[in-house]
Amino acid sequence: MTEFTLSCPAPFADGETVRLAHGGGGRAMANLLDTVIRPGFGDAALELRHDGAVLDLNGAVAFTTDSYVVQPLFFPGGDIGTLAVNGTVNDLLMCGTCPLYLSVGFILEEGLPLETLRRVVASMRGAALAAGVKLATGDTKVVDRGKADGLFVNTAGIGQVVAPAPIVPRNIKPGDAVIVSGDIGRHGIAVMAARQGFGFETAIQSDCAPLNGPVLALIEAGIELHCLRDLTRGGLASASVEIAEAANLAIVLDERAIPVCNEVAAACELLGFDPLHVANEGRFIAFIAPGDAERALQILRKHEVSANAVAVGEVKSGPAGQVSARGRLGVMRAIDMLSGEQLPRIC
Amino acid sequence: MTEFTLSCPAPFADGETVRLAHGGGGRAMANLLDTVIRPGFGDAALELRHDGAVLDLNGAVAFTTDSYVVQPLFFPGGDIGTLAVNGTVNDLLMCGTCPLYLSVGFILEEGLPLETLRRVVASMRGAALAAGVKLATGDTKVVDRGKADGLFVNTAGIGQVVAPAPIVPRNIKPGDAVIVSGDIGRHGIAVMAARQGFGFETAIQSDCAPLNGPVLALIEAGIELHCLRDLTRGGLASASVEIAEAANLAIVLDERAIPVCNEVAAACELLGFDPLHVANEGRFIAFIAPGDAERALQILRKHEVSANAVAVGEVKSGPAGQVSARGRLGVMRAIDMLSGEQLPRIC
Repeated sequence: MTEFTLSCPAPFADGETVRLAHGGGGRAMANLLDTVIRPGFGDAALELRHDGAVLDLNGAVAFTTDSYVVQPLFFPGGDIGTLAVNGTVNDLLMCGTCPLYLSVGFILEEGLPLETLRRVVASMRGAALAAGVKLATGDTKVVDRGKADGLFVNTAGIGQVVAPAPIVPRNIKPGDAVIVSGDIGRHGIAVMAARQGFGFETAIQSDCAPLNGPVLALIEAGIELHCLRDLTRGGLASASVEIAEAANLAIVLDERAIPVCNEVAAACELLGFDPLHVANEGRFIAFIAPGDAERALQILRKHEVSANAVAVGEVKSGPAGQVSARGRLGVMRAIDMLSGEQLPRIC
Repeated sequence: MTEFTLSCPAPFADGETVRLAHGGGGRAMANLLDTVIRPGFGDAALELRHDGAVLDLNGAVAFTTDSYVVQPLFFPGGDIGTLAVNGTVNDLLMCGTCPLYLSVGFILEEGLPLETLRRVVASMRGAALAAGVKLATGDTKVVDRGKADGLFVNTAGIGQVVAPAPIVPRNIKPGDAVIVSGDIGRHGIAVMAARQGFGFETAIQSDCAPLNGPVLALIEAGIELHCLRDLTRGGLASASVEIAEAANLAIVLDERAIPVCNEVAAACELLGFDPLHVANEGRFIAFIAPGDAERALQILRKHEVSANAVAVGEVKSGPAGQVSARGRLGVMRAIDMLSGEQLPRIC
């Protein structure tokens, strides 16, 4: 048999863009993976060369997935890469697990600058290291120009259960304190401001962040946690309604206690938004047995990401599935999910 | 506290389409999940109401992901839903694991007929039941009209390791038999024919199928399996080159032994394609210790999906990383990955 000369990966030139060939399963795709994606993930990644990664796990694990389609891809305080890591990490934490592994699935639009992909990969690497998760396995697809919006990312995640009891909506009980981990609405407003080019004087930064610190600290301290939920699409309002409906209990919030920073409050007033419906990516609510609420607040306030945690409400026995809020003038109002979207594509 | 009237999920009217509101995290999204997605998955799904699913696993597991962007969404022998289940199931099998759980992440384009989504969900349900996997957790995003191509799906999967030894490219050895599980090239040609509207007299059906039967039978029989690889993007050629490169060994194929059905051969001749590069979604190659090759073939031939399994080559000690094939006229030629794409968006 004679020896054959095989083509070598050519380094990419400045300004190069994604081509359909980068998704075709041939040399161009191997080159993209070898020069941009695998080295970009570096020490945040396991070896991504096989169809799947083999992991050692013991006992109960949580499994979750989210696709990310945020527009624009980059915004103050984060980008689609940090969002894709932190969003899935936080979903795992909300199940009472320690996040361990993520998968990454890219859908790239033909014509995407490779520099954009490099920036997103670098963000994901940084976010994965910060959250202590390994990128275990990945996939890259390319679609023709005009058939996607630059870049979409899916992450799925696996976490190891560390909570002693299930942390699920049906476990909340009348009397539970409802604690929110910080001021709400930053992420939704930051993304919308970046999209629309509003000239707010102070740029509002997204709250996008991993929540390992405070959540694992609550679990380690043996706090009686009944439910955790991160406040993403639909905000505090949708999260509360979903949990009240799942548990067949009522939740009463005190709007005067819910922290909203001045910039977000001003933007919401200007745009006619209710901050309770605006998305967050680094905030959560915790439903905690009343005897443990004060200790939980002390623990949360030791972590920067939840330094402004505060009790904002209480679980009541009924009316089943209903959420209400005492407003700034003391009047009660019903809180429901919005019927449709307020801010599309914020995650 | 007074009782509030909450909006109830309205049944969808005929001909209704996906709206941006269906991804907004509010009532419209809850309605889509409650009336189309959760009941559509039915008994193939765990309860999908939380941020993640908690699963009980023991020992080593494999974790994998793939996004699916096939165009058109429906083709002879399958659709994006069967592909998204079988593709990830097969990746888990190729790691020597028994597939257990999948996650599902939809990216929907505004304007997609709900009927299309229903058909895809029904396909995924059927494929999951056929492959014995549970849909454990899911996510749905909606992007504006013109920002996606109808519908993309990501699936990630978890499988339990059942093979006694790792099944990875670096484990292949000189002398190993290379077995292909059936005739190649059906999937790529079926999708392209459906896309281009070629009027082939006989419609070529995709080979899209789950490979649990033959793969788990090989493992149960104690066959000395060194590596398994499903032949997707890039076909038999790319899979062979990737494995030869990873193992630093050579692979010699006998083209005369590689099964290609008449319709695929004719289409390839017409279009100037090499069947070795055309995609499959229900075929795999197995690298098997020579003493076990004949027994492996007997086992494979008992399963319909691999009834035409045949030995097509052998692993050699060198030249490292190179694949060659003895052609129909007896002449050796070098086999490499294509530099770019042959048939974009076939999976």
